Amino acid sequence: MAYDFWYWDGIPGRGEFVRLALEAGGIDYVDRARESGGDSSSLIEDLQARRPDPPFAPPYLVADGMTLAQTANILLFLGEKHGLAPADTAGRLWINQVQLTLADLVAEAHDVHHPIAAGLYYEAQKEEALRRADDFRQSRMPKFLGYFEGLLDGESGWLTAKGWTYADLSLHHVVDGLLHAFPRRMSTLASRYPRLMALHLRVAQLPALRDYFASERRLPYGDGIFRHYPELDAE
Amino acid sequence: MAYDFWYWDGIPGRGEFVRLALEAGGIDYVDRARESGGDSSSLIEDLQARRPDPPFAPPYLVADGMTLAQTANILLFLGEKHGLAPADTAGRLWINQVQLTLADLVAEAHDVHHPIAAGLYYEAQKEEALRRADDFRQSRMPKFLGYFEGLLDGESGWLTAKGWTYADLSLHHVVDGLLHAFPRRMSTLASRYPRLMALHLRVAQLPALRDYFASERRLPYGDGIFRHYPELDAE
Repeated sequence: MAYDFWYWDGIPGRGEFVRLALEAGGIDYVDRARESGGDSSSLIEDLQARRPDPPFAPPYLVADGMTLAQTANILLFLGEKHGLAPADTAGRLWINQVQLTLADLVAEAHDVHHPIAAGLYYEAQKEEALRRADDFRQSRMPKFLGYFEGLLDGESGWLTAKGWTYADLSLHHVVDGLLHAFPRRMSTLASRYPRLMALHLRVAQLPALRDYFASERRLPYGDGIFRHYPELDAE
Repeated sequence: MAYDFWYWDGIPGRGEFVRLALEAGGIDYVDRARESGGDSSSLIEDLQARRPDPPFAPPYLVADGMTLAQTANILLFLGEKHGLAPADTAGRLWINQVQLTLADLVAEAHDVHHPIAAGLYYEAQKEEALRRADDFRQSRMPKFLGYFEGLLDGESGWLTAKGWTYADLSLHHVVDGLLHAFPRRMSTLASRYPRLMALHLRVAQLPALRDYFASERRLPYGDGIFRHYPELDAE
């Protein structure tokens, strides 16, 4: 039976990390909010009906009688059940650890354009965003990207010697998102991270994902986590 | 053999969520940075020597030949191995999900006093902090606390019907930290969350933790995640 996947329509957002794993793993799912015509009321209604253990926020996946939320938690489940991560304890926890470190970077990338409040428009916190973006570009991007570069296996090019995991897919999306949001900064930094940039290309060419990337299931970045505001970018 | 636990000395920080699980679970560990006299150089030196899969940042736990980082990942391991969470898939993933939602709140509580850059002093981002604190108190605190209140079991008072898990301990610490950082706001809000406040007291009275709380192993909040700046608090 197909899993039910719920996330806001119109942006890739945190839902994209789950979509990539579902698509690359060839796992049957229905993107419920999009199937409902993209009206957010169907998502809100479904979310509020999930008792007694509701998600705090989308994305969430309804699978095997469970309602699973928190991106890294959903991916942990998919990794275990569908073989998208090593099965042994050390490998499984290591990939979860990498995913959580990616989640930290994703949260920081979001807060670059929303440093004061997620509930306010960007324009209402633009001055603060300019300041936060400066630190993010100068300090945080090299720190995170250099760290991930060092994790990639010299032989396989992936996080593990044996092939891609769900965290490799997430790493692709983070690099892709940064290239979208900070093209000038990434043009300066990219040459320092040859393995990361190679992984970015390699994931895009996975047979199971090529169709997805060419389909309308793949959403443009829009007003999601990774946003391109030229004034927040610089070399 | 005792686990090696590594975290910055001098603050409870994210390390405290791990300490509480180790202490409440009666798990033998050595707090290595504190044992080394609290000099941060021993921690930095150890961290940099951990190859090929280094942590991005403390806390980390050296256990069974693994170096485990990311608070929620360490707790997932402790939960599985030492029975600090349900053993079945649904229960295990649910507690991981709650822990990750707590981690989101912890990151936001930190960014209240560091909305621009973790590497800058509070005083250098105080204007922005005043603005972010206002949103955090008005919007984020009730949203998160109301959510967690709704998760607590009416009979047991814990997240699960069967007794405490590592996420209950973390929930205690988050409430405790908010009481420290935002005493005025919490005095307004607390009566809305009777189960949460009862859990806060109940964890402090767990026999395995009473000794810990009275010991010098328990650190004052200091300049950690939960900081009391009177100007950031209000009713």
